Amino acid sequence: MEKTSKKPGAQALAAGELALIDRYWRAANYLSVGQIYLLDNPLLREPLKAEHIKPRLLGHWGTTPGLNFIYAHLNRMIRKSDLDMIYVCGPGHGGPGMVANTYLEGIYSEVYPDIAENEEGMRKLFRQFSFPGGIPSHVAPETPGSIHEGGELGYALVHAYGAAFDNPDLVVACVVGDGEAETGPIAASWHSNKFLNPARDGAVLPILHLNGYKIANPTIMGRASDEDLRQLFSGYGYEPFFVVGHDPADMHQQMAATFDQVFARIRAIQDAARQGRADPDRCPRWPMIVLRSPKGWTGPKEVDGKKVEGFWRSHQVPVSNCRGDDAHRKILEDWMRSYDPEDLFDRDGRLKEELRALAPAGKRRMGANPHANGGLLRRKLAVPEIANHAVAVDPAARGQLMVQSTEMLGRYLRDVLTLNAENRNFRIFGPDETESNRLGSVFEVTNRVWMEEIEPYDVHLSRDGRVMEVLSEHLCQGWLEGYLLTGRHGFFSCYEAFIHIVDSMFNQHAKWLKVSRELEWRKPIASLNYLLTSHVWRQDHNGFSHQDPGFVDLVANKKADVVRIYLPPDANTLLWTGDHCLKTYNRINVIVAGKQPEPQWLTMDEAVRHCEAGIGIWEWAGNEEGAVAPDVVMACAGDVPTMETLAAVDMLRQKIPALKVRVVNVVDLMALQSAEQHPHGLSDDAFNRIFTTDRPVIFAYHGYPYLIHRLTYRRTNHGNFHVRGFIEEGTTTTPFDMTVLNELDRFHLALEAISRVPGLAEKAAGVVTELRSKLEEHHRYVREFGEDMPEIQGWRWPG
Amino acid sequence: MEKTSKKPGAQALAAGELALIDRYWRAANYLSVGQIYLLDNPLLREPLKAEHIKPRLLGHWGTTPGLNFIYAHLNRMIRKSDLDMIYVCGPGHGGPGMVANTYLEGIYSEVYPDIAENEEGMRKLFRQFSFPGGIPSHVAPETPGSIHEGGELGYALVHAYGAAFDNPDLVVACVVGDGEAETGPIAASWHSNKFLNPARDGAVLPILHLNGYKIANPTIMGRASDEDLRQLFSGYGYEPFFVVGHDPADMHQQMAATFDQVFARIRAIQDAARQGRADPDRCPRWPMIVLRSPKGWTGPKEVDGKKVEGFWRSHQVPVSNCRGDDAHRKILEDWMRSYDPEDLFDRDGRLKEELRALAPAGKRRMGANPHANGGLLRRKLAVPEIANHAVAVDPAARGQLMVQSTEMLGRYLRDVLTLNAENRNFRIFGPDETESNRLGSVFEVTNRVWMEEIEPYDVHLSRDGRVMEVLSEHLCQGWLEGYLLTGRHGFFSCYEAFIHIVDSMFNQHAKWLKVSRELEWRKPIASLNYLLTSHVWRQDHNGFSHQDPGFVDLVANKKADVVRIYLPPDANTLLWTGDHCLKTYNRINVIVAGKQPEPQWLTMDEAVRHCEAGIGIWEWAGNEEGAVAPDVVMACAGDVPTMETLAAVDMLRQKIPALKVRVVNVVDLMALQSAEQHPHGLSDDAFNRIFTTDRPVIFAYHGYPYLIHRLTYRRTNHGNFHVRGFIEEGTTTTPFDMTVLNELDRFHLALEAISRVPGLAEKAAGVVTELRSKLEEHHRYVREFGEDMPEIQGWRWPG
Repeated sequence: MEKTSKKPGAQALAAGELALIDRYWRAANYLSVGQIYLLDNPLLREPLKAEHIKPRLLGHWGTTPGLNFIYAHLNRMIRKSDLDMIYVCGPGHGGPGMVANTYLEGIYSEVYPDIAENEEGMRKLFRQFSFPGGIPSHVAPETPGSIHEGGELGYALVHAYGAAFDNPDLVVACVVGDGEAETGPIAASWHSNKFLNPARDGAVLPILHLNGYKIANPTIMGRASDEDLRQLFSGYGYEPFFVVGHDPADMHQQMAATFDQVFARIRAIQDAARQGRADPDRCPRWPMIVLRSPKGWTGPKEVDGKKVEGFWRSHQVPVSNCRGDDAHRKILEDWMRSYDPEDLFDRDGRLKEELRALAPAGKRRMGANPHANGGLLRRKLAVPEIANHAVAVDPAARGQLMVQSTEMLGRYLRDVLTLNAENRNFRIFGPDETESNRLGSVFEVTNRVWMEEIEPYDVHLSRDGRVMEVLSEHLCQGWLEGYLLTGRHGFFSCYEAFIHIVDSMFNQHAKWLKVSRELEWRKPIASLNYLLTSHVWRQDHNGFSHQDPGFVDLVANKKADVVRIYLPPDANTLLWTGDHCLKTYNRINVIVAGKQPEPQWLTMDEAVRHCEAGIGIWEWAGNEEGAVAPDVVMACAGDVPTMETLAAVDMLRQKIPALKVRVVNVVDLMALQSAEQHPHGLSDDAFNRIFTTDRPVIFAYHGYPYLIHRLTYRRTNHGNFHVRGFIEEGTTTTPFDMTVLNELDRFHLALEAISRVPGLAEKAAGVVTELRSKLEEHHRYVREFGEDMPEIQGWRWPG
Repeated sequence: MEKTSKKPGAQALAAGELALIDRYWRAANYLSVGQIYLLDNPLLREPLKAEHIKPRLLGHWGTTPGLNFIYAHLNRMIRKSDLDMIYVCGPGHGGPGMVANTYLEGIYSEVYPDIAENEEGMRKLFRQFSFPGGIPSHVAPETPGSIHEGGELGYALVHAYGAAFDNPDLVVACVVGDGEAETGPIAASWHSNKFLNPARDGAVLPILHLNGYKIANPTIMGRASDEDLRQLFSGYGYEPFFVVGHDPADMHQQMAATFDQVFARIRAIQDAARQGRADPDRCPRWPMIVLRSPKGWTGPKEVDGKKVEGFWRSHQVPVSNCRGDDAHRKILEDWMRSYDPEDLFDRDGRLKEELRALAPAGKRRMGANPHANGGLLRRKLAVPEIANHAVAVDPAARGQLMVQSTEMLGRYLRDVLTLNAENRNFRIFGPDETESNRLGSVFEVTNRVWMEEIEPYDVHLSRDGRVMEVLSEHLCQGWLEGYLLTGRHGFFSCYEAFIHIVDSMFNQHAKWLKVSRELEWRKPIASLNYLLTSHVWRQDHNGFSHQDPGFVDLVANKKADVVRIYLPPDANTLLWTGDHCLKTYNRINVIVAGKQPEPQWLTMDEAVRHCEAGIGIWEWAGNEEGAVAPDVVMACAGDVPTMETLAAVDMLRQKIPALKVRVVNVVDLMALQSAEQHPHGLSDDAFNRIFTTDRPVIFAYHGYPYLIHRLTYRRTNHGNFHVRGFIEEGTTTTPFDMTVLNELDRFHLALEAISRVPGLAEKAAGVVTELRSKLEEHHRYVREFGEDMPEIQGWRWPG
């Protein structure tokens, strides 16, 4: 069966140009192989000896020659049309290729002067690769020109689109490997074209690089016919172009001709949209390229009688025992010499002038494009005064007012959109939940972006909205990452349970930030801000499948410098937190807050003080005035736990007035850790002043209770911490019943307090009986009437 | 623009049949609306009053009528051809529809006799929905006939394929909503057709149900043209059929005609393959259906002047204030009466006979199909004796032998495959890593399954392999879930870091198991077994992006009944663990073990005893003979930490012979928890006997150190636990350097031990200096030579 359909070879390149671009490609390939193998003798001035070979051969050759091939041809297009372009390298294994190309451009030596453009620099370039104290084997933050670490596959295309939004002059070339093409996130990412506005945004040029194999298997798309691929990508809304073959000269001609065509197509789409000539009801058919080239192209054809080039055996190190086996070393030497290094580098080891001329200059070099070091381009976000959006809380009537806190944040975000409208550098992301999460005020000043048809009865859809909604957390996260990494700002609101869908993307972004912070030349980017709402305690329409507060457990595993977790209990604290997070950089901030009406506790001034401290005693809620120490500390973190704690305290104070109660609220979870573990951690002294050193602490926590233990186990009073939280009980039921099922409700909290104060259970036996019977009464009532008892629904803090 | 292309209406149904099927559909719709709204008056014997309406209206109408429509037509096909079919309902929000249909079939009342087929039963059916003490709003384990909870979207189609593998007579009808169709996992799942063998496996019939809207937005595919969708699904390798419209009579005819066609097509594909008439080089083009029907079909057209039917406003509860607002209640009553309940149910509230006849009988009912309660069909897995695969460890020369432990497990798994070959009920899943993870022995008896072209030089690919490899953890996990839920067994090996990609799928499966265990009628299914290998400590080719041991932290949040975590330190313990996990049911077992050569510690007999206890003192490694208590406890969990601990103990015993050291190894992490928190938890007495109540414990742990604190904070000696683990430091470097970067290496462990034993640091000041200088020496050596010092590489336990 004929799988591929070649085009008649258009002669896009004159013979001289072809020879030059082929030499440039060979130079990149030579440097790539050198990085994988050589400790010394970088220019092969002498025959290869065992001691020139690294003791441990680590890295991935298979994908690299194809990546280098694309790079050389993109350089040609940049020079030809003065393009502003970056290269997103999905097959991140191909680290040697990206390093090689940025070295050829000169930018690598500018960033790392120790790796100079001479023989000694080349020796160091080779040696450092996958070497202790050197650089990792993958494209990484250390690689100039990259916004994308390729370790975990699936996110290249969504990063590329994120980079292109609001960058009308930018072209993002994005290579997707055929391994990566099997992942879910990529499979959905192709639909990002429905969200890219050619008038306002830049262009993404996806290049699906089919080399046919993964680690030890063929790939789905590698074995698919051209016709199936043509249909698939046409169905996704693209215009596919094919470049297929293995003969370098032919492939250079095909690639050059195809690039000429697709860049003309991109320009035509943009011109039409920007000059108002485009059919406003048609999402443009952007070009994409399918490039079929052999895995391990130009490498050894066979090793030990086994097929290597064009097969998965070239995935990592095609010929492995080059130190110990003379025949293997000979294969390597022949392979490297096949690129003819004398034809590429001068006596000093510097790329020859006529080849240097093939790279673009200055910031046009893809390794030096400032979009790939987004902090360079980041403009400060303008934010409104949070006081303008404050809820007016009367200190004499706390908890009386019921407000949807996220609605207040929505008004604040509306103003952020307005203030930065001109800069076009702020977007809101979410899986179809902006309105549902009560952030709908933003639609007073913007819309959801939508490039497919818009019907007359549609609501808040437009071609230039700044709210991005798609039912894929992967796309929301990836777009936002790409947007931030290129110097902009954003905000992601998501159902709490389903943020787990992007756990691994969060991990990778946290890793990127951790390493970036260690590189002085990488300038800080805006923080990635999550609002997790529709949380575990208020899944009224859904139930158990929507109940999981564990994302923050994962977050707490990451480097303290990088992560923050906030649990604001009401609107004013949420406003402070949201505002604070938007002003930070190089972090991941997680805010957990409900969208349902809830009691409002603090004035704005109090909220500011409370949030700045991260934790505090709510004196107005306790009754320890004059006591040396309280009998019990009632602590809480999270909006629902705070309400239940205050309801428990209200009961305790009424029913056992002699009991001295302290109420502590935690907004910034990291304050619980010790100061040496986290920059926000309280000193032990401060912690002891708040939680005492010997009194029982009943801690009502929003999520899995273990996290509080993990954060506080070093504290003096930890043995007296009794934490309640979500214990995986739940279903579709009433809000209060959810807390009862997980024993986080006011009655359980009050009962636990009584049981933990020495001697109190006996003295207050009547209260214990009464509280237990209340639980019974609740149980009967809710099952009979399907709603919470009026006294629960109507409870308000006495003020 | 014309979006849809109608086919000429074939008259597949005679007039009488059409009227019947329409009435059946109306019955399901009536029951669906009743569940969302009514507390009482289920048959509308009297005008609707406020008190008949639920106080809290929860649920999702929008998707439900379409689901009911499909159900009715699938019933017709089952009866017509005696099909063995299950229904996977991707839009799990449509819970009322699945409940309604299984009630109409009679199976609901068989499973839940209290919900009888009469007026009182119907009243209870309505009342229990989304009601405290009742059933959740989504399709859930409580729903007969379901293997799929629809809360988190994206997994319907992988579950369907998982169910179809090795079930040649089964047809899995799988409805994918257009919201779900935007997710990554679904977008990749369409490629599952490349892994389904028509000769050996059953069929999956995907029905893409486009009702056009998500919560508050149109959907990508809902707004795509038929032509784009035709190309897209053709490109995925399917033959798409379209059913488009809103007029019920027309739609019934279209659906019936289309089903007649597609089921004939399925049968033809299967016949050709099974009779050897199919082109073996062609992956068959299975049919799939695109059904476009209005969201909220047959519901209120408008409410309060706003468009509802055919728009996102019908997503949840189309008319909301039916208790308080007479006009709204009137809309509801008119809507329900539009289905004409008297025409559907008899005086007793039972479905009329002529309609009952439309449902299949007995186990052919989709709600009663045993495949959807897989435990009914589960056959015990045959397993070999683990002793046959034991590594021969000489107790006099422990740690001398270096073995790749996962390779031993691979041989065991090979035998499992052989022993169960005839039953065709065991498969191995992994993202292209079976060989890389050293499980390659399985390829002696089976292959990877592959339905695209196979080239002559391909290795271990075939049409009927039992190893499923695709570069998508989502597909591996989802296929395995579907396979297990329908009563089979499986094993998933994955790179440790990238299992986070399926965190949320793990969550949902754990939730499914938790609820299933509470339902007596749901029979136990085989456990979901993970082998996490290529772990954090041995990412030689990769580096930081591949280093994350945090999956187990997430696992530990789940219900203790459901989860187990094992860290076998060598091959024999790995064999016991793997064997044990394969014999368990209704659990999720996580095994973490490296694939690199590592020292072997225990004989098989010792391994059995050690693993059965889950934790134990390694007396041969310590030197406390005769002492009342050791000076220090060196504890370890995980293969690399075990090796580093023993190397530290080796040094301590040589250099400070007077120091009494105890070595404790933990295989079963849950043993650390207290017995009341986890069934595997040690009693406090046993824990104290092992860890003492007052001696320092230096705990070398495989993952993030906090987990050990979280598991042990209640223990008497917890204050003396000093845990070392992964602290997010790493890159591409040597294996030993990785442990040094994270301060988990032998030198740091020995130094910590010395520092924690009172007075020892002063006495052993020379040793401290020596160990510190060793660290310096390592640092210099590794950066100069690129490999670990010979004394590190060559270290062996003295035996």
